[in-house]
Amino acid sequence: MSETTGLPMRVPMPGLPVSVRIHEVGPRDGLQNEKAVVPTEVKAEFVHRLAAAGLTTIEATSLVRPEWVPQLADAEQLYPLLGDLTGVELPVLVPNARGLERALALGVRRIAVFGSATESFARRNLNRTVDESLAMFAPVIERALAEGVTVRGYLSMCFGDPWEGPVPAERVVSVARQLYELGCAELSLGDTIGVATPGQVRALLTDLRTAGVPVSALAVHFHDTYGQALANTLAALEHGVTTVDASAGGLGGCPYARSATGNLATEDLVWMLQGLGIETGVDLGRLAGTSVWLAGHLGRPSPSRIVRALTSED
Amino acid sequence: MSETTGLPMRVPMPGLPVSVRIHEVGPRDGLQNEKAVVPTEVKAEFVHRLAAAGLTTIEATSLVRPEWVPQLADAEQLYPLLGDLTGVELPVLVPNARGLERALALGVRRIAVFGSATESFARRNLNRTVDESLAMFAPVIERALAEGVTVRGYLSMCFGDPWEGPVPAERVVSVARQLYELGCAELSLGDTIGVATPGQVRALLTDLRTAGVPVSALAVHFHDTYGQALANTLAALEHGVTTVDASAGGLGGCPYARSATGNLATEDLVWMLQGLGIETGVDLGRLAGTSVWLAGHLGRPSPSRIVRALTSED
Repeated sequence: MSETTGLPMRVPMPGLPVSVRIHEVGPRDGLQNEKAVVPTEVKAEFVHRLAAAGLTTIEATSLVRPEWVPQLADAEQLYPLLGDLTGVELPVLVPNARGLERALALGVRRIAVFGSATESFARRNLNRTVDESLAMFAPVIERALAEGVTVRGYLSMCFGDPWEGPVPAERVVSVARQLYELGCAELSLGDTIGVATPGQVRALLTDLRTAGVPVSALAVHFHDTYGQALANTLAALEHGVTTVDASAGGLGGCPYARSATGNLATEDLVWMLQGLGIETGVDLGRLAGTSVWLAGHLGRPSPSRIVRALTSED
Repeated sequence: MSETTGLPMRVPMPGLPVSVRIHEVGPRDGLQNEKAVVPTEVKAEFVHRLAAAGLTTIEATSLVRPEWVPQLADAEQLYPLLGDLTGVELPVLVPNARGLERALALGVRRIAVFGSATESFARRNLNRTVDESLAMFAPVIERALAEGVTVRGYLSMCFGDPWEGPVPAERVVSVARQLYELGCAELSLGDTIGVATPGQVRALLTDLRTAGVPVSALAVHFHDTYGQALANTLAALEHGVTTVDASAGGLGGCPYARSATGNLATEDLVWMLQGLGIETGVDLGRLAGTSVWLAGHLGRPSPSRIVRALTSED
């Protein structure tokens, strides 16, 4: 990397945000989709290293039933190990009322609920219709807010669905509005299968604004399955979005799998934002080093192109 | 792929071109950077398959000295096998006057010369200063034009250079103007090491316009080494660029290498353009099938994310 010091060159683009908050999902969304089960103390060190690299929002784990996601079954053991990180938000995914009680018992201050824009995915992932899932979330969000806990709402399959194909924007807008009105402070628009393109992103964001959901309440969550994540991110930035989800080292997507899950790698995002002169607070070298370190624990190289390029010796 | 029929969803974005011409570089730039030497008849079938997939500009080979690029040493044998492709342009890379004579003898109607924006790369790749290389190109271009041959000028290292770091736009503009004034009908702006970000792309394109090089004479040639190629392409489209270089299946970048060459995969580009409703004439399924077929001859999977996703069975 010494040969390319000073890169990326910083050249701002008119009309983009001054700063972006990265919502790091590696420890939760990333590890949840890895085959290897990482020991609790490695996870704790991972979160601490991410914080040391400058990330200020790190989704730490999930309070689903341990038998559903064995990779994150140690949430109750992990969370107390993270308590000494000042200035870092550590949201935890909570599937239902039982999960919320566990979160409150742990002292969690930020939770996320996981909704779907499509009936097919709601049925498969939540075993409910979209309306039934919203009805399930309502008391969870209400009680969280009463306890002073901030709630993020994930919205899956916002652009395409593996069973239904293209997803009409009006369906996304409808679910997003309801989650927003239930009290979600932030909505993360997920391109769960990675099929979106920039025009679709811009159109959905425009429709959401028209429907009264402010852009300041929106985050984008793109997958790189079809290589589109950064182009879509650029379209979202041009629309004024300032919160972007990403996974350190592309965690959760396998570099060798023929169908990778394909989380956008935080490093690839930071490279673009740095080049655009957009502040993130993240030290790219330190972040890439963390991804390489974790990849060692997973027994395979990082799927991030940047991580491979920055740590290349050939 | 049957599950996701109808994807990508077509949603245009205001201000983008109606159509884009893809300059396919796989048979030349791609194969030149592969370890395996592909048999001539496989190359010919590759070009025919690319044409059948709808590509109309396919850079076929290079007339450098055979000992320099053994992968393309069969140019004289290959080119005559391609002669029956109507409606398809088959440019050939020509390094110097000797290469031009070989091209004319073959009946080539489009050539490309390969320049550099930086002194370091000019010295290493051409064994000349930038000015000396332009002086070498001048009579080549002049004689080509006199023979009715169209000339494309490649400009390497337009954004960053591995020895020099960030490349100032004014140096790129200076060389680009000279190549344009020498008679290049098209200039391909290369991000040879893949470090550019969208603001830098837009700034360079703006400076070129100011310097009198029309956007209609410009092509962009992005590498995906740092994952930035499609975001940069979007920025170029927003500026009005309508010619984009890409390599079928990401050919020339190794999926497993720690430092991939990283040509933008034509499939990834076509997915984005299709989603944006921009006409390319390319059949994505047929193109991905061609990349899978060629990967079999190279003995390794395609580095394109799309090819892997579209042909996945797991």
